[in-house]
Amino acid sequence: MSAHPHLPASLSANAARVVENGFTGPVNSALVPRYSGPATFALLPGIETVEHADVAILGAPWDAGVSFRSGARFGPEHIRSASRLLRPYNPALDVSPFAGMQVVDAGDVALNPFNIPEALGVLQDTATSLVRGGTSLVTLGGDHTLALPLLRSVAAVHGPVALLHFDAHLDTWDTYFGAEYTHGTPFRRAVEEGIVDTESICHVGTRGPLYGHRDLEEDRRFGFGILTSADVFRQGVDEIVARLRERVGNRPLYVSIDIDVLDPAHAPGTGTPEAGGLTSRELLEILRGLAGLNIVGADVVEVAPAYDHADITGVAASHVAYDLVSLLALRDGGKGTR
Amino acid sequence: MSAHPHLPASLSANAARVVENGFTGPVNSALVPRYSGPATFALLPGIETVEHADVAILGAPWDAGVSFRSGARFGPEHIRSASRLLRPYNPALDVSPFAGMQVVDAGDVALNPFNIPEALGVLQDTATSLVRGGTSLVTLGGDHTLALPLLRSVAAVHGPVALLHFDAHLDTWDTYFGAEYTHGTPFRRAVEEGIVDTESICHVGTRGPLYGHRDLEEDRRFGFGILTSADVFRQGVDEIVARLRERVGNRPLYVSIDIDVLDPAHAPGTGTPEAGGLTSRELLEILRGLAGLNIVGADVVEVAPAYDHADITGVAASHVAYDLVSLLALRDGGKGTR
Amino acid sequence: MSAHPHLPASLSANAARVVENGFTGPVNSALVPRYSGPATFALLPGIETVEHADVAILGAPWDAGVSFRSGARFGPEHIRSASRLLRPYNPALDVSPFAGMQVVDAGDVALNPFNIPEALGVLQDTATSLVRGGTSLVTLGGDHTLALPLLRSVAAVHGPVALLHFDAHLDTWDTYFGAEYTHGTPFRRAVEEGIVDTESICHVGTRGPLYGHRDLEEDRRFGFGILTSADVFRQGVDEIVARLRERVGNRPLYVSIDIDVLDPAHAPGTGTPEAGGLTSRELLEILRGLAGLNIVGADVVEVAPAYDHADITGVAASHVAYDLVSLLALRDGGKGTR
Amino acid sequence: MSAHPHLPASLSANAARVVENGFTGPVNSALVPRYSGPATFALLPGIETVEHADVAILGAPWDAGVSFRSGARFGPEHIRSASRLLRPYNPALDVSPFAGMQVVDAGDVALNPFNIPEALGVLQDTATSLVRGGTSLVTLGGDHTLALPLLRSVAAVHGPVALLHFDAHLDTWDTYFGAEYTHGTPFRRAVEEGIVDTESICHVGTRGPLYGHRDLEEDRRFGFGILTSADVFRQGVDEIVARLRERVGNRPLYVSIDIDVLDPAHAPGTGTPEAGGLTSRELLEILRGLAGLNIVGADVVEVAPAYDHADITGVAASHVAYDLVSLLALRDGGKGTR
Amino acid sequence: MSAHPHLPASLSANAARVVENGFTGPVNSALVPRYSGPATFALLPGIETVEHADVAILGAPWDAGVSFRSGARFGPEHIRSASRLLRPYNPALDVSPFAGMQVVDAGDVALNPFNIPEALGVLQDTATSLVRGGTSLVTLGGDHTLALPLLRSVAAVHGPVALLHFDAHLDTWDTYFGAEYTHGTPFRRAVEEGIVDTESICHVGTRGPLYGHRDLEEDRRFGFGILTSADVFRQGVDEIVARLRERVGNRPLYVSIDIDVLDPAHAPGTGTPEAGGLTSRELLEILRGLAGLNIVGADVVEVAPAYDHADITGVAASHVAYDLVSLLALRDGGKGTR
Amino acid sequence: MSAHPHLPASLSANAARVVENGFTGPVNSALVPRYSGPATFALLPGIETVEHADVAILGAPWDAGVSFRSGARFGPEHIRSASRLLRPYNPALDVSPFAGMQVVDAGDVALNPFNIPEALGVLQDTATSLVRGGTSLVTLGGDHTLALPLLRSVAAVHGPVALLHFDAHLDTWDTYFGAEYTHGTPFRRAVEEGIVDTESICHVGTRGPLYGHRDLEEDRRFGFGILTSADVFRQGVDEIVARLRERVGNRPLYVSIDIDVLDPAHAPGTGTPEAGGLTSRELLEILRGLAGLNIVGADVVEVAPAYDHADITGVAASHVAYDLVSLLALRDGGKGTR
Repeated sequence: MSAHPHLPASLSANAARVVENGFTGPVNSALVPRYSGPATFALLPGIETVEHADVAILGAPWDAGVSFRSGARFGPEHIRSASRLLRPYNPALDVSPFAGMQVVDAGDVALNPFNIPEALGVLQDTATSLVRGGTSLVTLGGDHTLALPLLRSVAAVHGPVALLHFDAHLDTWDTYFGAEYTHGTPFRRAVEEGIVDTESICHVGTRGPLYGHRDLEEDRRFGFGILTSADVFRQGVDEIVARLRERVGNRPLYVSIDIDVLDPAHAPGTGTPEAGGLTSRELLEILRGLAGLNIVGADVVEVAPAYDHADITGVAASHVAYDLVSLLALRDGGKGTR
Repeated sequence: MSAHPHLPASLSANAARVVENGFTGPVNSALVPRYSGPATFALLPGIETVEHADVAILGAPWDAGVSFRSGARFGPEHIRSASRLLRPYNPALDVSPFAGMQVVDAGDVALNPFNIPEALGVLQDTATSLVRGGTSLVTLGGDHTLALPLLRSVAAVHGPVALLHFDAHLDTWDTYFGAEYTHGTPFRRAVEEGIVDTESICHVGTRGPLYGHRDLEEDRRFGFGILTSADVFRQGVDEIVARLRERVGNRPLYVSIDIDVLDPAHAPGTGTPEAGGLTSRELLEILRGLAGLNIVGADVVEVAPAYDHADITGVAASHVAYDLVSLLALRDGGKGTR
Repeated sequence: MSAHPHLPASLSANAARVVENGFTGPVNSALVPRYSGPATFALLPGIETVEHADVAILGAPWDAGVSFRSGARFGPEHIRSASRLLRPYNPALDVSPFAGMQVVDAGDVALNPFNIPEALGVLQDTATSLVRGGTSLVTLGGDHTLALPLLRSVAAVHGPVALLHFDAHLDTWDTYFGAEYTHGTPFRRAVEEGIVDTESICHVGTRGPLYGHRDLEEDRRFGFGILTSADVFRQGVDEIVARLRERVGNRPLYVSIDIDVLDPAHAPGTGTPEAGGLTSRELLEILRGLAGLNIVGADVVEVAPAYDHADITGVAASHVAYDLVSLLALRDGGKGTR
Repeated sequence: MSAHPHLPASLSANAARVVENGFTGPVNSALVPRYSGPATFALLPGIETVEHADVAILGAPWDAGVSFRSGARFGPEHIRSASRLLRPYNPALDVSPFAGMQVVDAGDVALNPFNIPEALGVLQDTATSLVRGGTSLVTLGGDHTLALPLLRSVAAVHGPVALLHFDAHLDTWDTYFGAEYTHGTPFRRAVEEGIVDTESICHVGTRGPLYGHRDLEEDRRFGFGILTSADVFRQGVDEIVARLRERVGNRPLYVSIDIDVLDPAHAPGTGTPEAGGLTSRELLEILRGLAGLNIVGADVVEVAPAYDHADITGVAASHVAYDLVSLLALRDGGKGTR
Repeated sequence: MSAHPHLPASLSANAARVVENGFTGPVNSALVPRYSGPATFALLPGIETVEHADVAILGAPWDAGVSFRSGARFGPEHIRSASRLLRPYNPALDVSPFAGMQVVDAGDVALNPFNIPEALGVLQDTATSLVRGGTSLVTLGGDHTLALPLLRSVAAVHGPVALLHFDAHLDTWDTYFGAEYTHGTPFRRAVEEGIVDTESICHVGTRGPLYGHRDLEEDRRFGFGILTSADVFRQGVDEIVARLRERVGNRPLYVSIDIDVLDPAHAPGTGTPEAGGLTSRELLEILRGLAGLNIVGADVVEVAPAYDHADITGVAASHVAYDLVSLLALRDGGKGTR
Repeated sequence: MSAHPHLPASLSANAARVVENGFTGPVNSALVPRYSGPATFALLPGIETVEHADVAILGAPWDAGVSFRSGARFGPEHIRSASRLLRPYNPALDVSPFAGMQVVDAGDVALNPFNIPEALGVLQDTATSLVRGGTSLVTLGGDHTLALPLLRSVAAVHGPVALLHFDAHLDTWDTYFGAEYTHGTPFRRAVEEGIVDTESICHVGTRGPLYGHRDLEEDRRFGFGILTSADVFRQGVDEIVARLRERVGNRPLYVSIDIDVLDPAHAPGTGTPEAGGLTSRELLEILRGLAGLNIVGADVVEVAPAYDHADITGVAASHVAYDLVSLLALRDGGKGTR
């Protein structure tokens, strides 16, 4: 497939890959150090190297919708760099996600940093095209504004979806400086557009002050449930999982994870940190509790590397994305490939 | 009130503010980005702009009493900068603390960095004057030495007070290099001076090695209870809250929070970190459990920004201070204004 | 002037100020530690406290026009924090800039982060209003897009101005992703709008690769001279100064300084760093060589604090702004007040 | 003991030390600031100053066995620097570990960074010599490869030992790039060499993806138990302790602690971080639960300071090492000296 | 060329590229933000996408030869990330290096981190294969040990080469801990192996203490000239260039650049920093003075990202590599393509 | 000399040392990695291991005299850690400073952080005792207040001394907050006390704003010459050296170096940074120009590690101290030992 006729075998372009059940997996890290070659997600192959992808990691480097610290445009590169330590078997879910379906890195979407509507449109078109082609997406943001076009893309195929929204914030504000599409408003827009199933939408991990009690009232009126970070702490992961599963049932489910759902200790590299958040272990354990649900798409957003240290946030986000891919391997009650 | 006759409305000096029930609140962040204008605490008005303040955030930038890492003199600036993300409604306590009383930022006290007694005296006089005028203080340190003059100021008005002391350390040592007034000694001095009610004083979150078993014996003799970080972990927040409420009863209560009560993961920016500490969520949940108590003053100290990263510590400290203000809105069993 | 009747004298709201020749200057740092109280530029008074300001430092926290690293929205806060070490006498120019004219901190302009045209309009209106009122501005960015409305504001009063543009880049590109107003285009727009005098416009400190030789050709056609960073190194500061003074003559002059004109060693905290830049000493010495020119406005932009370390960039930017204020004290061949 | 006849008493070489029960302890930090003088572990005396040491802290600065981030060669210096805040009484275990036995800092072993077998041999010989002489070691790494020669040294004296291995990873891989001795393989080698008692070996805190399900199968076949990080979270510290104590019984026990057993929030400064780890409080509480067991040696490895911030990792590692020393004071059911 | 039949055009795998004179160049950054898509060097195409490459950037992520701070294994990734700001026209040399020859990113060589001889052998074979195929290499290290196999690869084709060695250190020590092949010894080995032309070898930028005067004597005996950092400072760039050109003449020339030739201010991210080094501007100006020489290969080594800040070092290294590519476009007195 | 009878030879306490001409030098770094063992200055022996020291490096960890950023109390540890890369031959001065006289690390002086007069007294007594015993000191601060007792100690033996003061600031203010002894006042006190020879005192490297023109007038009245940072830039190092040598002549000379004489790019880790400073190369070249003068003592102060990055400041300070030791080897026109 290489155009170059004499590439030495030792080059990363020729890196040996793990192939299982006909699916091309990550670079073989027993032969190639993990810090060598391009940092695709989990060292997976690029989408352009396969004929069909069941699941794709898609980068969406864009942050024109943020209201405080910017920098999430560098999020996809950062998460991918941290993801190189991921290995192909997930013991927590007893599944080898790359061995039962074709998982790839789709690279990044080119998004105009100066034009919010254009960027949302391009992402929506790109995602819809992939979803329509049978590829489920785990999108790496970028800021949370992007959840809206991503929800539109799954709704275009699956109809209104259930939504589990992990975040310190509600993200259901109306406008901000007169702007309808910002990282504080995607889920209000989603309700207004009828692309989420308001019987089964829920925030998890919220905390911190709001503008007023009315924020909660409106949010409840839209149909959202709220399980706060304090609820996770007091009720425990199993109870939270039970409530989420009950709410979602077997509906097509979209999972949107703002990395600021984690405590700043676990995710310093983000734009609007709030004290009192989840630990990365709690988040991962809750996600693992969703095994078997009918997940149709997911995102991990708001990783702002300029504020990260030693990849703490990048490692957390990459593990979250890896567990989301694992859940896709187990969706609809499947057992996946060990 | 401006001396300048033609200030454009877009300038931060003219920033639109939230006003509720006649109380002037924060800058309206739907119109003014939170990173604009002077970083007063929670973007609240300055004390000089109101005729009377019920609660004031007071900065005490001073660290001449520290025994290891210095730098808490930059604490007030750092906490205020991080506090700009705070919004006016506190859902955890269902109260809008700025809407039922006048809360302001009192700015900083000018404290001599080269003269410990002079600095303590000036802080004591300043605080006493404000407390006597009916203003409750939430002081941002600065090092823990400052708790002594602050306790003197509340005792001058309220008599000996109950004390809840959140800290990794006891801070009841006698002298250090012959010095009586350092950040390791304020609470021994407070007992000696009779300004705390020894029936109701308690350390919370202590951990880490001591000089000897005698440290514990002396501390107990002074009347202090101890709930260690391990106790918080093993007994749970609700049990801890119950024991604290029992100890305090309806006495006038001072709450002193050394940010190193948090684990270094949650508060790297401090001077004498100890592993094994509280999470920020535990600390906030315990504080919220104190709602209704008769709080007369509080401080958050030992934030050393040179050791912070991405405002992890600053955000935690600002949330702690915000919850303390919220508790002042709910003191004496009040319900506050939603 | 305080609304509060009983403010203790030790509070920063009451801080003693240096007053010379009837001009109110900085807080007296022999009595108040420099890290106390609000971090106005050089601890100067706010614009709202004076009846007329000759020179104002204006913050413009906005970065929606950047093409790579974002974060300059936090620039004004950062430069002000670093500026607290500035003292009132400038020995390099033998002038006390605050003692011969009223210099103030005008605070920040509230600029919509989601709407480029609106933000540029608000800044233009604000700046024009101040300039019309006789206040010269030294604006702290924010990204370089903002130079355009600032140039419009001085041109509205002074007609087309001479321009000295210190930058690693030309900033005369046409569009970027279809956007006309970005941080790479302000000076092309300025030429097109006829608000700069193309006889006397010059880039200083440029370096690094371009898109093509045509970039240089177009830039030259617009009238710009170029003195590269290598020219500064090889010709020396005095020769550079002579060439700049010759080019500018006695025209009204605007000085726009992108902090990335400095080498990344001297200004890591910026968005599009290029190796091989000026030292801070070179930049300051060149600026000092402009003493006596007819400066009508200036800016210091592209300080992105998330990438700064130990305030290296903030200190450099604050010294640059201080020398710009000093030049305003010496403009039109004046001697200033020692 | 000084060769110099006229050393001023104020010099650190003459620093006053705490002496209890004839054992020489740390520098007296009531007289000498903790940041003064050489940063031996907990400011303890050097091994060369005593005739016999019961317990020695041994530095092993070497990281030629790492597969991802390097830098653990600077680990011993870093942990010692952070350890200066340790005091001589451990309230969590009610023991004064330096007052009932002679504890010293043995300094570092000189290990060839370019020759893996030579380095392992030198460490093995050094450790064996000390252990044979009656000195129990708490070794500060360095990377995890070093656990193998350390296990050999205790097995040479005590026969095959029980092993509690705290780590995010199994470290029982076979080879890596054809190398048998790397930081991913020490415990497989130890089983093969028969130096651990396979009836009582257990991993604690593992998490994160593996190469395949076979990793778990092989590991189990070697005899290892696994208590994952999720197990610690769900079962609680007391249950984990009970299971570990049962497994170990009264066998001679070696405790090997890879600092990456902690969550990256609690230990950013390490080479192969994995999200979802233990808190430092959990790790310390589990270790304290091992009081009375027959510990014969221990290590704390994989601290990579270039990735640490504000000594978060260094403080955690120093507390872990301090608790290990305390456990040595309490081994074999002893009560230690309060 | 894509295996996937329906890739949306907006994906980075389809990114529009600049094509000039039949040579495929970087991604078109007027359409695709520079922070999108894989960070190949200067956003150039991968070697596998072309039939023949005239020049290739080759990553050699390996640091098993370092004696102090490790971490250069992450150098190639870091330099590439910083290189995304590079544009296709080099005004300092008036050449468009990607428009007159095919320049590509060859990715990384997989090098065994645990086996020095094997790693050197693989790099030598890989490089020789590429050089023999007519591809000149600019290699990104990795540590300086790697210069030896790279010199062997050019000598295999060109015979003994002239060598300009930019470095704070001589790198002509004999052995270190008994090891012949470390980052302190490559150029002694090269002399011993007869692969450099000892008439025309020279160190540039050396400074800092040595083991003894004998180091200089031996170095001189091998044939090396020395132009210290102080020489560069005192004699000026033009004089240095003249002396280097005289020494090299028209011999085939290899240029090896240890980034620590720069002052730590300009290159903090390296392993053995020495004060008093070159500025990045000096280094770039000297390199540009080599235009027209017969360069046959080059490297930029010893970038250790864990010690970098805000990409200061990465930006400097990427500019150095870009100028080296530009020099390859101008070699043999060619004029290159503007 | 070891009390322990059976120490393995591989331990750092037994590290092989370079011994030349009967003088014990650094650890042999061809056998012991430089990052092993205690970080004494340049890995030199401790003062307690020799009978007489000609030159001692003395740590003075104390910063109670600082007016802005604190933290210089950690300076000695930091400089020593960075100094481990120093080797025994100084090619810039062609001298092996450890081979012609006995140079040692004297460790730290224990200084009370809470009592300025006591600390100054203890340092004065300690230094005087050593100087009287024939040991010249190169002191590592600590803040600049400490220069006063150090000057007293040399004056006690040598009478009033010449003083070359490298600093961004004059440090001749009178009082600060009423305090006479701070880091801004030592040289005014020294003049008042008559311990410097006012015929031969000079500041080098000053820059940045002052409180008023009167600062310069007073300073001149005290007898100080001033060579600013701009003077160094414009006149060149040789001219500066000539003027300094003329001023000093053959008087006993004390050299006091505030690391903030360097630009913040070269010394971010300091307390009161000023833009436009010297490069580390300029400072080292000036110092080397002082060879042969009658130096009787020196200090390097104001290194504040919490603000350093990658040891930039520590490396610069360690090289400065190393050159000062080299100058002591060459004092009085001596040639030193090569």
